[in-house]
Amino acid sequence: MSVELLHGSPEPPSDDIYDNWYIDDPQEPEVPPDEIIPDCDLTLPDGMYHLILAPVSLCAILLLSFLVQRKRLCKSCCWGLPGLLSPLNLLEDSGNRWIPCAVFGLLFSSLCRLLLDSTTLDFLPEICNAHQALWKILALFYYPALYYPLLACNSLERVVGYLVGTILSWLHCGALIWQKIDCPQTPKFYRYYSLLATLPQIGCLLVLSAVYPALLLYKLRKPRRSDQKTHRNYYLKYLSRLLNRKPSNGSKNLGTPGSQVFRTIFSYLYPPNTDVCLSLKPVLAVTASMLSGYQVALLLLVVFLPTVQKIRKSINEEFILVLAGFGLNVDENKTAAVEFIVYYIWVVEVCYIAAMVLSCIVTVTMLLRSLVKHRWALQSLCAGQSSLVFLDSRSPSPSPSVLSSWMGHISYQAAFTCIGLIIQIVVLFVAHVCVTFLIVIPIVYGKFQIILHFLKMSWPYWLLLFLVTVLQYVCSRFLFLEGHPSQTTNRKSLFLLTYLLLPVNVLRGGLVSIARLLVSAIFNLIHFCRMDLSLLQHSVQGWDPGYRNYCNFLMLEVSECHPLVRAFCLLLKPQQGKHPDLEEGIHLMPPDGRSHKGGRSQLARARWNLAYTLIHNPSLHSQRIPTCSNGTPRLQPT
Amino acid sequence: MSVELLHGSPEPPSDDIYDNWYIDDPQEPEVPPDEIIPDCDLTLPDGMYHLILAPVSLCAILLLSFLVQRKRLCKSCCWGLPGLLSPLNLLEDSGNRWIPCAVFGLLFSSLCRLLLDSTTLDFLPEICNAHQALWKILALFYYPALYYPLLACNSLERVVGYLVGTILSWLHCGALIWQKIDCPQTPKFYRYYSLLATLPQIGCLLVLSAVYPALLLYKLRKPRRSDQKTHRNYYLKYLSRLLNRKPSNGSKNLGTPGSQVFRTIFSYLYPPNTDVCLSLKPVLAVTASMLSGYQVALLLLVVFLPTVQKIRKSINEEFILVLAGFGLNVDENKTAAVEFIVYYIWVVEVCYIAAMVLSCIVTVTMLLRSLVKHRWALQSLCAGQSSLVFLDSRSPSPSPSVLSSWMGHISYQAAFTCIGLIIQIVVLFVAHVCVTFLIVIPIVYGKFQIILHFLKMSWPYWLLLFLVTVLQYVCSRFLFLEGHPSQTTNRKSLFLLTYLLLPVNVLRGGLVSIARLLVSAIFNLIHFCRMDLSLLQHSVQGWDPGYRNYCNFLMLEVSECHPLVRAFCLLLKPQQGKHPDLEEGIHLMPPDGRSHKGGRSQLARARWNLAYTLIHNPSLHSQRIPTCSNGTPRLQPT
Repeated sequence: MSVELLHGSPEPPSDDIYDNWYIDDPQEPEVPPDEIIPDCDLTLPDGMYHLILAPVSLCAILLLSFLVQRKRLCKSCCWGLPGLLSPLNLLEDSGNRWIPCAVFGLLFSSLCRLLLDSTTLDFLPEICNAHQALWKILALFYYPALYYPLLACNSLERVVGYLVGTILSWLHCGALIWQKIDCPQTPKFYRYYSLLATLPQIGCLLVLSAVYPALLLYKLRKPRRSDQKTHRNYYLKYLSRLLNRKPSNGSKNLGTPGSQVFRTIFSYLYPPNTDVCLSLKPVLAVTASMLSGYQVALLLLVVFLPTVQKIRKSINEEFILVLAGFGLNVDENKTAAVEFIVYYIWVVEVCYIAAMVLSCIVTVTMLLRSLVKHRWALQSLCAGQSSLVFLDSRSPSPSPSVLSSWMGHISYQAAFTCIGLIIQIVVLFVAHVCVTFLIVIPIVYGKFQIILHFLKMSWPYWLLLFLVTVLQYVCSRFLFLEGHPSQTTNRKSLFLLTYLLLPVNVLRGGLVSIARLLVSAIFNLIHFCRMDLSLLQHSVQGWDPGYRNYCNFLMLEVSECHPLVRAFCLLLKPQQGKHPDLEEGIHLMPPDGRSHKGGRSQLARARWNLAYTLIHNPSLHSQRIPTCSNGTPRLQPT
Repeated sequence: MSVELLHGSPEPPSDDIYDNWYIDDPQEPEVPPDEIIPDCDLTLPDGMYHLILAPVSLCAILLLSFLVQRKRLCKSCCWGLPGLLSPLNLLEDSGNRWIPCAVFGLLFSSLCRLLLDSTTLDFLPEICNAHQALWKILALFYYPALYYPLLACNSLERVVGYLVGTILSWLHCGALIWQKIDCPQTPKFYRYYSLLATLPQIGCLLVLSAVYPALLLYKLRKPRRSDQKTHRNYYLKYLSRLLNRKPSNGSKNLGTPGSQVFRTIFSYLYPPNTDVCLSLKPVLAVTASMLSGYQVALLLLVVFLPTVQKIRKSINEEFILVLAGFGLNVDENKTAAVEFIVYYIWVVEVCYIAAMVLSCIVTVTMLLRSLVKHRWALQSLCAGQSSLVFLDSRSPSPSPSVLSSWMGHISYQAAFTCIGLIIQIVVLFVAHVCVTFLIVIPIVYGKFQIILHFLKMSWPYWLLLFLVTVLQYVCSRFLFLEGHPSQTTNRKSLFLLTYLLLPVNVLRGGLVSIARLLVSAIFNLIHFCRMDLSLLQHSVQGWDPGYRNYCNFLMLEVSECHPLVRAFCLLLKPQQGKHPDLEEGIHLMPPDGRSHKGGRSQLARARWNLAYTLIHNPSLHSQRIPTCSNGTPRLQPT
C-alpha cells in the first residue's frame, strides 16, 4: 500500500502555492507521521455506485407508474408519460413532511458538493475531462432525477410505494455508509473533509430509511386510515373560527416574569400561533438553506484552518531573520519572537473560528425568524391586510413572472444563505482580527498600541465633543424648554448657541455619519439571507431583487393555498376518501358565472359561492357575524 | 529671493514617501522650471489679518448693541449681555436670505480648511505648536465669533446695521483678495490649492459686499418699508387657502410632450409647489454642505492628481527593467512598454477625475432632491398626514433630544455630505478602474483579457441559465397558466419541473443575490448624504442615526414654524409694524385655559383659539368648509 501526503500529493494547486511561500527549502519537507494518510481503494467506487443505483431508481419509478396508475396511463396519450408520478405536492402540503425535507436536504448537500468540490466528478472516465463543464451541467439534472423516486414513493400513499421507498433508501444509505467506512480519509483539503461533508447526506438517508419502514408498518396495520386527518382538521378549524364568530382576544395567564422572558425569546423564533399553518415550501427552503450553509461553512473551515496551522508549526528562527530582513523586528530575543509570532497566528485562527461560529448562529437565527415572519405574512394576507405586509395594496393573481419566482424560491433561499454566510464570515473575521489586535492585545500585552496613540493625540477633541453634548442637552432641558414644555423659550440664546456650536457639531456629525455607515452595513450583513425583508428603504423596497422574488412567492402561496379553499374542497367531497383537489374545486365554478342545473347539490354550490366570494374579497372576513341570515346557508363543520 | 520646490520642501511627510518610492536616486532629482514656485512674503500676513479684524468685529458688535438696543440693555441685568444682538432668526425666517447663506458658506469654508489643511494655523507663534490640538479647538469657536457681526448686522434691519455690515464685509473681502493677489501660489499639496480653496470664501464675501450696500441704499430710500411684506403675504395666502375653501385640483394645460419631459426632470429637483415655503434652515444646510463638499473634493483632487502625474512623467526604461525584475513583462519593445505604462497611468487619472465629477453631480442632485422632499414632508405634516412621512403617527412636541438634533442639523448635513462624498469617490474610482481595465482596454487593445477568459471557461453555464429562464417563462405562460388566468393548471407538471430545475435555480439565485448586494450597496452609496431617507428597511428605519436626527429636526420645524401660527400672529398685531413674534402669540393663550377678561379684543382671542385648535388638530384642516357658522368668527384676511 503506497502512502500519500495530506498536502504533498502531486497536483493540488492551492497547496503548492503555500508550500512554496513559507518554506524556502529546495527539498521536500519532512512530514510528521500524523499527516500521512493511507491511500485506499473503495470496494464500491463512485462510478459503480451510480451505475447500480441509477437503473434501480429508473426501474422503481417505471414499476410504480405501471403498477399503480395503469388506469390513468391507458387514458392519456404517449404511453401515459405525462401521467408519471408527481414528485410531491408542493402547494397541497399533504402527507408526511419528514420525507420531502430529507430528500431536499440530500439533494442540496449533493449539489453543494458538486459545485464546491472539484473532485466530485473524478470517477468519470478520462475522456470526459475535456468537457468538464458539460458533465457538471448534466450532473445538475442527474441528481434530482436520481433522488426523484425517493420522493415519488411517498406521494402515492400506497403500500407498494412505501415498500419501494424503503428498499431504495436502504440501498442508498448502505452504499454511502459502506464507502465511508472503507475510506474515511481523503487527501483533498483536509483528511476528514469528505467524511464531514457526507454526514448530512447520511443523516438524511437515515431519516428516510427509518420513516419509510415506519409508514409501511402503519399502512399495513391500518390500511384505510389516511394521513389527511390532521390537515383536514386544521382546515375545518380555520373555517369554523372564521365563519362562526370573531376571534376572542382572551387575556392569557402570563405566569412568572422568568417564564415570560423565556416565552418572549421563544416567540421570536417560533411563536405559539395556531391560526395559520406553515406550508411545506418555506420549511423545505429553510432545510435546504441550512444544509447548503453547512457545506459552505465546512469548506471555508477546511480551506483556511489546516493551512494556517501548518504555517504556525513551521515558524522558526529563520523566519524571524527573514522578517528582520524586511525591517520588522518583533523582539530582541529570538525564541520570544518565535513565540510571539506563533501566538499571533493562533489568535488569527481563534478569530476565524469565532467568526464562523457567530455567522452560523446568526444565519440559523435569521432563517428561523424568516419562518415566523412568513407565517405572520400569510396570516395577514389571508385576513386581507395586504398593506400591512407590502405597504401597498396588491392583488394576488399569478402571472408568468410570479410563477417563475415561485418555482425558484427554495433554490434562491439556499443561494442567498450561502452567499450571505460567506460575506458574513469574511467581514466578521476582519472585524474580529481588528478588535483583537487593536484592543485586546494592546491591553493584555502592551503591543500594537495604535488606538492608544490615537487617543493620546486626540483626547482634547473627545473631551470637547463630550462637553458640547452635555452642554447642549443641559441648555435644552433647563433653558430652552423652560416652563413651556411644548414650545421653545429663550429663542435668541438658542439661535446664538446653535450658531456658535456649528463647527463642533460638524465633528459630532462625522461620528454620527460613521455610525450610520456601520449600522446600515451591519444590518444588511445580518439580514442578507432573509428574502422576506427588503434591504432598501420603504419607498424603493421593490428594487431589491430578493425581496421582489419573495413577494411574488408569497402572493402565489396566498392565492393558491388559502385555507378557506382547502376547507371547502374538503367539505364538498368528504365521502369519497380521495385527496381534496383544488383544480376539481375550481372546475365546479363555471368560468362564465352560470350555475349548473344538475350535478352537485344546491348546498354545495352555495357553499362554494361563499368560499369563492370570501377568497376574492378577503376584507369581508372581518364583516362575518355568527348567524348569517342573508340567504347564505349557515355552515356547520362536522 | 529663495526658491522652493513644489514637492521638495523640507518637511512634507506625504510627499517624501512618494519621492522615496518611485525615484531610486540618492541625489535630489532635477526639477523642471515649471515646478519651481517663488517663495513670497505676504504684505498682510495671516496673523496681522486676524489681529486687525477680530477687534474691529468686536467693536462693531459692541457699538451696535449699545447704539441700538440701549433701552433693552438698561432693563436687563449683567450690563445687558443676554440682550446682545441675535445672529439670526433661524426659525423665524425673516429678512434677506442671501446674507445668512453667504455667512454660513464663509464659515463652513473656513472650517473645512481648518480641519483639512494643517497649515491653516501656521501663523501662530512657535510656542503654540506644542498644543496644536487646543489651538484648533479654540479656532473652532473663534471662526463663528469672527463672522458673527456680519450676520448680526442684518438681523437689526436698521440703517446703522447695514452700514456696519458694509464696512465689515468690504474689510474682510479686501484683505482676502489682497492676500491672494500677493501670493497666488503656495507649496502645500499643489501650487494653486490655496487659491482654489479660498475661492468660495471670496465668493461669499463678494456677495456680502454687494448685498449690504444694496440693502443700505434701499433702506435709505424707503425707510419705512419692511422686508416682511413678502413673508406676510405668503402666510396670509396660506391661511386664506386653508380657511376659505378646499384646494381646487384644476387640471393644468400640459403642453407638448417635450416640455412635459423637461418639466418632469425639473420637478424632480424643484417642483412648482407654492403651498409651503421652505424655511431658512434646510437652505442653509444645503449651502453649507455644497461648500464643504467642494473643499473635500478639491483636497482629494490635489492630493492624488499631481502625485500621479509626477509618477507618470518619471516612467522610463529603467522602470521597465525593475518591473521585469519582479517578473512583469509588459512588452518586448522597451519603448512600447514605457508608452503602455504611461498610457495606463493616464487612464487611472482619467478614471479618478470621472469618479470625482460623477460623485459631485450625484451629491448636488441628492442635496437638491432633499430640499424637495423636505418641502413635501413639511406640507404633509402641516396637513396632519404624519403617517405619510414617518409611516407611523407622531406628535410634534419638542424634547431636549429633539432640540439637540435641531441645533446640529446644519452641521450634520455638512458632515454627512463630506463623508458620503469621500466614500463615493473611492468606490466609484475602484469601479471605474475595474470597468476600464477589465472591459474597455481588453476590447480596444486586447490586453488583460481576464473577463474573456472567464467567459470562455463558463459559457455553458451562462447558456444553461438563459435557456432555463426562457423555459420557465414559456412553461409558466403557456402551460401552467393555460386557460385560467387566475389559477395554476397542470400542477403535476409544475411540481415536476420545479423539482428538476432546483439545482439550476441555485445558480440563478447566486446571480440574484449578487444583484441584491450591488443594488443595496449602490443605493446606500448614492443616498448616504440624504438625511431625509433612512438607509434601513421600514420596520427599523429609526435605527439609522441620520434619519432619526432628521425626523427630530422636521418635527421641531413643523411644531414651531406652522404657517397658521405665523399668519395669526400677523393678524393679531398688524398695526404695530413690529416682527411677528411667536412667543408673544403663545403668551396670549393662557396655559390653564382661562381667557382674560380685559386686554385684547374678543375677536383676537377667538381667532387665536381657532388657530390653536387647528395647529394641535391638523386633521381638522380638511374638514373646514367655506362658510363657518358654528360660532367661530369668519376670517377675512386683508
